[in-house]
Amino acid sequence: MGKQFLDLKNPAEVKTIIESLPFKKEVERVALEDSYQRVLAEDVYATISLPPFKRAAMDGYAVKAEETFSASENKPVILKLAGQIKTGEAPKIRLEKGACIEVSTGSPLPEGANAVVMVEFTEKKDKTVYMQDSVAIAENITDKGSDVTEGELLLSQGTVITPYKIGVLSAVGMGKVPVFTQPKVAVVSTGNEIILPDEELKYGKIYDINSQTISTAVKSCGCLPISSEIVKDDYNSLKNRINQLKDVDIIITSGGTSAGTGDVLRAVLDDIGEVLVHGIAVKPGKPTIIGLIKGEDDKNNRAEDDKNNKKIIFGLPGYPVAAVMVFNIFVAPFLKKMASLDIATENPTLELKLSRRFRPSRGRLHYVLVKIQDDVAYPILKDSGAITSLAEADGYFEVPKNVEIIEKGTPVEVILLGDLKSCYCQ
Amino acid sequence: MGKQFLDLKNPAEVKTIIESLPFKKEVERVALEDSYQRVLAEDVYATISLPPFKRAAMDGYAVKAEETFSASENKPVILKLAGQIKTGEAPKIRLEKGACIEVSTGSPLPEGANAVVMVEFTEKKDKTVYMQDSVAIAENITDKGSDVTEGELLLSQGTVITPYKIGVLSAVGMGKVPVFTQPKVAVVSTGNEIILPDEELKYGKIYDINSQTISTAVKSCGCLPISSEIVKDDYNSLKNRINQLKDVDIIITSGGTSAGTGDVLRAVLDDIGEVLVHGIAVKPGKPTIIGLIKGEDDKNNRAEDDKNNKKIIFGLPGYPVAAVMVFNIFVAPFLKKMASLDIATENPTLELKLSRRFRPSRGRLHYVLVKIQDDVAYPILKDSGAITSLAEADGYFEVPKNVEIIEKGTPVEVILLGDLKSCYCQ
Repeated sequence: MGKQFLDLKNPAEVKTIIESLPFKKEVERVALEDSYQRVLAEDVYATISLPPFKRAAMDGYAVKAEETFSASENKPVILKLAGQIKTGEAPKIRLEKGACIEVSTGSPLPEGANAVVMVEFTEKKDKTVYMQDSVAIAENITDKGSDVTEGELLLSQGTVITPYKIGVLSAVGMGKVPVFTQPKVAVVSTGNEIILPDEELKYGKIYDINSQTISTAVKSCGCLPISSEIVKDDYNSLKNRINQLKDVDIIITSGGTSAGTGDVLRAVLDDIGEVLVHGIAVKPGKPTIIGLIKGEDDKNNRAEDDKNNKKIIFGLPGYPVAAVMVFNIFVAPFLKKMASLDIATENPTLELKLSRRFRPSRGRLHYVLVKIQDDVAYPILKDSGAITSLAEADGYFEVPKNVEIIEKGTPVEVILLGDLKSCYCQ
Repeated sequence: MGKQFLDLKNPAEVKTIIESLPFKKEVERVALEDSYQRVLAEDVYATISLPPFKRAAMDGYAVKAEETFSASENKPVILKLAGQIKTGEAPKIRLEKGACIEVSTGSPLPEGANAVVMVEFTEKKDKTVYMQDSVAIAENITDKGSDVTEGELLLSQGTVITPYKIGVLSAVGMGKVPVFTQPKVAVVSTGNEIILPDEELKYGKIYDINSQTISTAVKSCGCLPISSEIVKDDYNSLKNRINQLKDVDIIITSGGTSAGTGDVLRAVLDDIGEVLVHGIAVKPGKPTIIGLIKGEDDKNNRAEDDKNNKKIIFGLPGYPVAAVMVFNIFVAPFLKKMASLDIATENPTLELKLSRRFRPSRGRLHYVLVKIQDDVAYPILKDSGAITSLAEADGYFEVPKNVEIIEKGTPVEVILLGDLKSCYCQ
């Protein structure tokens, strides 16, 4: 007799349960060039001052500023050229009175000098240089530590590493960067009818959609999909596979569409874990399961490790639209939190008028996918098995469970399904 | 005497020159799981219909709808249970009059059936099933091709591949995806004073900032940084290294800060290529060089390949802020165009009031970095050697070359330097 949802939970309750799921944050050190888009796990303090030494800010001549005060184009001050300091070289000479030393932008300033005359305002003749303009003390030089002082906080824990942040880390010579490890996620599509891409499509079979879609969505949450596979839709296959998935933080299954998939996962969890949620009062997405699986060490009753050794399992519905919507609304925020990206990310919303009268599904919170055109939200009225609705959707709006009808033109708050446009900018 | 910029070009002119730079688009086929964030190089048509067969949309019993028309809870219609069709199995039986066949969501519908009665409205007794509700013809079944018709256009060339698009490609069993190749970029920092991360910082040396910063920015434009290195700041070192960089589309150098770096690159280009731009009337970024390097085949005078065999070279200033700003404003749009991401990306802008009176650099278009706080733009008044300005900047505004002063409170249009927040959403 029919599917049994022992306790259909409302979405707010489910979100609260998810927020309290156990997880641990770990730290790893990755090469600077691999740290892009990762999250800093520690505060980064400057280990050196920047610049690390007093340097010339212009190409020209290091001078004692006071000796140039009377210089002008018509009455140049003539100084003896005492040598040159190239960039990258420690000065071997000291600037004496009546002399100047050739420097390039970035050259260390020699002792005895307190300014640089730009090469544009000079003329070199044999062993002397004609200074055609005066400089103030400290002009055209950059002091040691004027940009960054040794010991200063440069970047805080939790910073997402962008190209500019890579620049800051480079500047202090940081070759390895402490970042939070990416949560490891195994993605499992269950079903006897689903097959891999490029396999021959026999009658009654369909290509697997969820494993690659959810794995990619996992990446977009800053997590690491470590496996993406199809498992037969029966108790033993699912239980054995779950038991084999050892080095993962989260398992995300999606039911095949065969009868009682949710029940198979439920039975497995009743045996080797616990069920926290079985059934959410939403459409699509009702037959979702959330549970915990005992860790290896639980068998040895090491209670103190208990919480951390549990794997979290999300059992999504099999229909791709339902799977993706439940992933977006319930799973993604948690993955981002695990990946320390929770503060950084919130999908933008738009208030748009509805294109037509709409009669939602009653009794459950209804997520309605929409296509946006000319600032109007067009509901996509396909069932949640229709993959084309994902290709067309720009966002969705929520209809509370007791609304009977929404009239054409009513403003609805559309939560935008971000695309990748904004990823490709600085 | 001073640096010579033979022909300081205005920014609009430089953008026009960059827009006409030669490049070719190539296509490669990558595994579905590696296609995330890539750009479709071909239109994708459905090679199959979806669903590929007529199927049950609910768990229940396949029936002839007309036989259920009189059914109700009190007066159920009793049908003989003729068998079961599991998901993934081709039906071996045909539905005869007076019978029903058990099906699961996703099971192929047996011949002879035209509807499914949901299991919730049935009761099974031995070899018969009591139908407690009527169904209309076609109720609870999904027709072959109702989602996608074979031959239909699914995704267009130029589509950026998101998790949902992966779902669409999965649905038609596409294991390999035709995408545009990522332009290959070599990033070279020149300078005698710059050293690699984790090297010992001797007096006069500084850590290289630009190679990793620009390489990461190259990634953020959808291109592939294939090398990221430091080269000595002299004619032979630079020329030899450029000649060794064969399998690249673009070379991006950034000058060390030593005298005449721009001139070294210019001399190399005069020898093995051509200079298109030497000097842009902007601040920061004046000493930028843009040029072309002859391809290998040019030596054999194969004129028809001439254009395609040329490598593009961008010579950025050495100071990190100047290098990054020139990269953002002039190089990034071109890299995105090469990567076929040009339509998708435009940095957002905000109109904000200026926090203080500001006196721009005259005679050149001035890009002023700002930090945004409480809807006010605070100019960052550090020189372009200051890496901290990159850590602090939220955006920049442009001041045309002849503006003398901008009063406090004047609205300025701030071009936001995107961060990665928006990457981590669906």
